[in-house]
Amino acid sequence: MIRLALLGSTGSIGTQTLDVAAQLGDACEVVGLAAGRNVERLAEQIRAVRPKLVSVADDEARRRLRELIGPTPPVDVGDEGLVAVATMPEAEVVVAAVTGFLGLRPIVAALEAGKRVTPANKEPLVVAGSIITRLAARSGQPLVPIDSEHSAIYQCLRGESADSVARLILTASGGPFRGKKEGELRAVTVADALRHPTWNMGRKITVDSATMMNKGLEVIEARWLFGLPPERIDVVIHPQSIVHSMVEFVDGSVLAQMDYPDMRTPIQFALTYPRREPSPRRRLALSEVGALTFQPPDLEAFACLALAYDAARSGGTMPCVMNAANEVAVDRFLEGRLSFLGIAETVARVMERHEPVAEPDLEALFAADAWAREVACEEAR
Amino acid sequence: MIRLALLGSTGSIGTQTLDVAAQLGDACEVVGLAAGRNVERLAEQIRAVRPKLVSVADDEARRRLRELIGPTPPVDVGDEGLVAVATMPEAEVVVAAVTGFLGLRPIVAALEAGKRVTPANKEPLVVAGSIITRLAARSGQPLVPIDSEHSAIYQCLRGESADSVARLILTASGGPFRGKKEGELRAVTVADALRHPTWNMGRKITVDSATMMNKGLEVIEARWLFGLPPERIDVVIHPQSIVHSMVEFVDGSVLAQMDYPDMRTPIQFALTYPRREPSPRRRLALSEVGALTFQPPDLEAFACLALAYDAARSGGTMPCVMNAANEVAVDRFLEGRLSFLGIAETVARVMERHEPVAEPDLEALFAADAWAREVACEEAR
Repeated sequence: MIRLALLGSTGSIGTQTLDVAAQLGDACEVVGLAAGRNVERLAEQIRAVRPKLVSVADDEARRRLRELIGPTPPVDVGDEGLVAVATMPEAEVVVAAVTGFLGLRPIVAALEAGKRVTPANKEPLVVAGSIITRLAARSGQPLVPIDSEHSAIYQCLRGESADSVARLILTASGGPFRGKKEGELRAVTVADALRHPTWNMGRKITVDSATMMNKGLEVIEARWLFGLPPERIDVVIHPQSIVHSMVEFVDGSVLAQMDYPDMRTPIQFALTYPRREPSPRRRLALSEVGALTFQPPDLEAFACLALAYDAARSGGTMPCVMNAANEVAVDRFLEGRLSFLGIAETVARVMERHEPVAEPDLEALFAADAWAREVACEEAR
Repeated sequence: MIRLALLGSTGSIGTQTLDVAAQLGDACEVVGLAAGRNVERLAEQIRAVRPKLVSVADDEARRRLRELIGPTPPVDVGDEGLVAVATMPEAEVVVAAVTGFLGLRPIVAALEAGKRVTPANKEPLVVAGSIITRLAARSGQPLVPIDSEHSAIYQCLRGESADSVARLILTASGGPFRGKKEGELRAVTVADALRHPTWNMGRKITVDSATMMNKGLEVIEARWLFGLPPERIDVVIHPQSIVHSMVEFVDGSVLAQMDYPDMRTPIQFALTYPRREPSPRRRLALSEVGALTFQPPDLEAFACLALAYDAARSGGTMPCVMNAANEVAVDRFLEGRLSFLGIAETVARVMERHEPVAEPDLEALFAADAWAREVACEEAR
């Protein structure tokens, strides 16, 4: 029996996690749900899975939720609410699918409480990878990631020893602007950027996919999850999104994990780990997929990817600053207040102004995050 | 230190095994070599690796070898010679790369002597899979295969539990006649059949690749190595020979092993197992490979593959009979005495005349083999 606390239940990963939990039937019980302000969807979820504890963004959201669900279950709010669900005694596995930096505190709390955490939002690992991986190692619990690329690598590494690994190869669909040169990206609109060719995801991550910052964040995430320096983590463009990532071993052998683009496969793998359970999803028919192709990324047109490698090499607070600046810039872009290329320009300018602090603790990270958001607001013009 | 006895040292797999052993340097010592009649090449190998024991086909070959190498090392002959090298006390790992049915006795002897056997010739497993896998299980030694397809599957299965596996997917280049219909195969010559598009191999296996009997033998081999029934072992045509095979798991995830077509990668994996050691070979550059494509096999044009599935389902002595008939038919084809399509026709006629014996012991297998060769000589017209 998998007893699950789900942070970010009304988002894209959250709802798909509940799909998978429903398919797993009696093998999976959802004991806690944390969401933000989408109380209508949360109320439906509460009626479906009957959690023991719930959390929402604030008192106003709680008041609206109460009107929908009545007196039970208990509803906590804010950061403390997220932490309460992440550490509830009934939960064994915590799916951490809260977008952005907000997801960091509950992950740290869950790890300190000895939970098995499956990170789905990449920002906490990007920002605080050294802290999270250290806490997980201390708890003895595996960090089985939910991102399709990292799940792929995790699967390829099973049964292999760490010194066998030559490099990780993250695949990228290339997003809606694959093959475009920098000049062609000058006039793209929000609608263009939200039209992802292969994956159906949330808005923030879809824009990150269009800029390739998403892949940059994944490089940094992989650096922590798998303990390899950025120069041994490569990115290859693979428009079909069938090969979800690969590992090259020292003997030249390459293992790849494949499936249709469907987040429910990595979600289920993370939930049922170390077992694999049958799933009702359509089986990969390679004969019907057509050709699988691969090409190198264009680091000039997609400057965010190059910035992420820079941040990974700088280390310390730099990935945190990059991530915060990117969150602000993507918000501004989605609001129509910043151009598409302005996202990378803003992030670059904030990074230029930052003096990184080595081996930061959580307080230093929160300070760097706040600083970067302030500076990004200035620079995002 | 890997102490190696190499059976079939002058063949394609044998010479490549010695390449790999040389690259591994001090980590690998070749203690025994067995070959047939190519004493010139064997003499060179003896000078290079200085084995403690050698074996050749017969007294005549021994006489010619002695002229080349002088009084040492000791040289045994025939079946007993093969068994002597396979069981020599100095050997820990036995690479079994003797083509055809001849390779069976030394494998059984090596397993009974507690050696770790790495099967490279598929016929012994096809013919006597139940006996070989039972002996290996009793000795507690893994059977790490050298065939690129089975090595790929072995690598994909590392760290996975047996009940997680949904099906195995063997890739096939399709050989020189891929995409041809039955009618177009009527007039193909020996030279056509020996012109393999991606793999550089011996003559027998290259013809088997052209008829797709090679893939059929691999289906039966996989059935024994991985303990799955033939209906859960699929074949997919993959002309580029980059994906060497795949495993589909019950959760829908597919793992694939990839590399350029180079037997030295699976050979090295089998030698150094469970470790992976660095190799000097060129690293797979997917961006340079072009598209990877997949298509279903044509069981009408390539009737040998369908026959192999039939033999796998019949079980007992039937795969042995199919293999023996195929060896005779391929010999006749290489001698110019049988047409290309005559190979499958001969095998089919011999199989039709056979009443399979269930759970045969070695003697029953030898009898079935002898019967099938005799009948195949009649039928190969």
